[in-house]
Amino acid sequence: MSAIAVDEELTRAAGSREAYEPSSPVAEFGASEPLRLDAGIDLAPFRIAYNTYGELNADKSNAILICHALTMDHYPASPSPTTGKPGWWSPLIGEGKPIDTTKFFVICSNVIGGCGGSTGPASLDAASGDPFGLNLPVITVRDMVRAQKMLVERFGIDTLFAVVGGSMGGMQVLEWTVSYPDKVFAAVPIATGARHSAQNIAFHEIGRQAVMADPEWHGGRYFQKGKRPTKGLAVARMTAHVTYLSEMALHRKFGRNLQDRDTFGYGFDADFQIESYLRHQGSTFVDRFDANSYLYLTRAMDYFDIAADFQGLLANAFQGSKTRFCLISFSSDWLFPTAESREIVHALNAAAASVSFVEVETDKGHDAFLLDEPDFYRAMDGFLSSAARARGLCE
Amino acid sequence: MSAIAVDEELTRAAGSREAYEPSSPVAEFGASEPLRLDAGIDLAPFRIAYNTYGELNADKSNAILICHALTMDHYPASPSPTTGKPGWWSPLIGEGKPIDTTKFFVICSNVIGGCGGSTGPASLDAASGDPFGLNLPVITVRDMVRAQKMLVERFGIDTLFAVVGGSMGGMQVLEWTVSYPDKVFAAVPIATGARHSAQNIAFHEIGRQAVMADPEWHGGRYFQKGKRPTKGLAVARMTAHVTYLSEMALHRKFGRNLQDRDTFGYGFDADFQIESYLRHQGSTFVDRFDANSYLYLTRAMDYFDIAADFQGLLANAFQGSKTRFCLISFSSDWLFPTAESREIVHALNAAAASVSFVEVETDKGHDAFLLDEPDFYRAMDGFLSSAARARGLCE
Repeated sequence: MSAIAVDEELTRAAGSREAYEPSSPVAEFGASEPLRLDAGIDLAPFRIAYNTYGELNADKSNAILICHALTMDHYPASPSPTTGKPGWWSPLIGEGKPIDTTKFFVICSNVIGGCGGSTGPASLDAASGDPFGLNLPVITVRDMVRAQKMLVERFGIDTLFAVVGGSMGGMQVLEWTVSYPDKVFAAVPIATGARHSAQNIAFHEIGRQAVMADPEWHGGRYFQKGKRPTKGLAVARMTAHVTYLSEMALHRKFGRNLQDRDTFGYGFDADFQIESYLRHQGSTFVDRFDANSYLYLTRAMDYFDIAADFQGLLANAFQGSKTRFCLISFSSDWLFPTAESREIVHALNAAAASVSFVEVETDKGHDAFLLDEPDFYRAMDGFLSSAARARGLCE
Repeated sequence: MSAIAVDEELTRAAGSREAYEPSSPVAEFGASEPLRLDAGIDLAPFRIAYNTYGELNADKSNAILICHALTMDHYPASPSPTTGKPGWWSPLIGEGKPIDTTKFFVICSNVIGGCGGSTGPASLDAASGDPFGLNLPVITVRDMVRAQKMLVERFGIDTLFAVVGGSMGGMQVLEWTVSYPDKVFAAVPIATGARHSAQNIAFHEIGRQAVMADPEWHGGRYFQKGKRPTKGLAVARMTAHVTYLSEMALHRKFGRNLQDRDTFGYGFDADFQIESYLRHQGSTFVDRFDANSYLYLTRAMDYFDIAADFQGLLANAFQGSKTRFCLISFSSDWLFPTAESREIVHALNAAAASVSFVEVETDKGHDAFLLDEPDFYRAMDGFLSSAARARGLCE
């Protein structure tokens, strides 16, 4: 796959008879195995694109599921065919790394609703032959996890050794431990929260409004028009990107430095480096991400509230849990501040669950979970090694 | 004036011969009195719309200049003809109020570059007969203050008793004390900073990109096309509005409450109250504000850096100042956090200037300077009363 999946699907939607062949393995689920969605609709057929690293052991007890964040994909440890860049967690996953592929079998699947090869709004709706667009039911984090469960069962895995993920990936980790408490030996929710806050919903809504205000969005039917709402999606990305960084990091990296000039331009071009940087973030994002998927995945995060089915009592969500938890937060993350991880830790304590907690000191903001943070890597290594011993995976 | 000035000007631009009559007084400056802009251009003719409250005393020593924020106008103490709402500082300005109009003569003018009646991008360019659009030179905070100085001189006022303002208004206050140190007896910069931070520039740039991505913006020539970039401007306003509030206030006011429904809608309508609220903020803003003015005024704030002409040494900017300062910040303001006011206080201390400082405890974020905050009102009252005694305005 040299272009992103949505483009290939667009080609197909536009009339090509060539079979769609993603570069990663894909699990297909037919009419007999529908995905039951929270929206009350059975989705069938559907498919999940995924990658694996390492080998599944004989008793299938060494599997780690990696859950990706909003704009990531199922290439955490191998180059993305979309961008050509190394896997987004390549310092963390591989031989001799904290998620050691000589010991563990690592699975990472593209989320349902995404645009990396799993069924999403850019996928063809068998009923119409057109891309789903907004005809795809709204997807929740629980739907993503239900689909992952079906994929994991295809491997004959009964219990995952660990589920690990940051941000929206961390929401999936929490959902796994609540929806399938007996199927997760260890869980590492990183830079996440038990629910999406009002401020976070607000920033997502701004992004969605930016996309939907773009006349090239066409009510979600842009593929049929041969268009894409790139300007709106770029503004959405710029907005989100600021929330991923910290004020300190922005000050340190950019401050008020000017871009290729000594004095103000007295105009509306990018005078400041921070402006050029943001514009670049916006313009490169639209090449690798589908606008409708952005609507669906932000909506999934907005809807996430793990305590909602437990009368809002977070501790009740974890009652009786045998999973070992390690919560990780980053001190300068203001999208999912440490207080939100701490609230989960308190609930786990109240539920008498096994939990450890690490707040990594860094000025890199929310994005720190994707950046070089040795303390983060050490925490992951220590926790997984200890859990692996408890699971009898090594001496 | 029942509609906003830009609409009346649009009518005029569209061919009406009717003279433009704003509802407030306007000071006209002709070719012999150009406004020298930082961009290196002389602007002439230009005009300043303003309002006054109270009476100027015989020796013209009781004048307080109120400087307004980005989206405000020159109606701080009387109903805005645009919105019909009470003046934006009406609890603060009036008979017996902290800015007591029985003692003080209050002047507030619409900033140059704005859209409330002073010359801005929606004003007619005498050269072309069309609205300026982007042909108006970029305006700085110093330009705004230069224009205010010319207005104040029209009243025959040599020295202002006080200059008071919040946010962009606070920047103007600081600029007055540095550009015209002998002309300001007392200064109250509120919820502001000595320079615009990288994060604040980033949020402004997002807003500008949202406006400029709207195809109805037409490179700034939307009046000529009979259009307005309302969708882009609404997204810009939504983005800015989130930065004006605190996470705490959003949680307290909205949390995850749903709007007129018990369960999720599983769609992209406004499910959450915070979404409805933001959409409302966006859609009402476009009725009262000109999109090009939004570009110009955000740019003015981005460019603001009071120490830039003093080798970046803030204390040098205030060297020898005889002005009495009172800095006011709000504890939950993350757009202009208390640390930024404190930096100014330290610089004033280093410059041996007279300074007091109040941090008001509140969860209302940056917007607190426009909201009912008794501690803020008391601080203003106490400082101005004391300064008035020192100035010999009362016993």
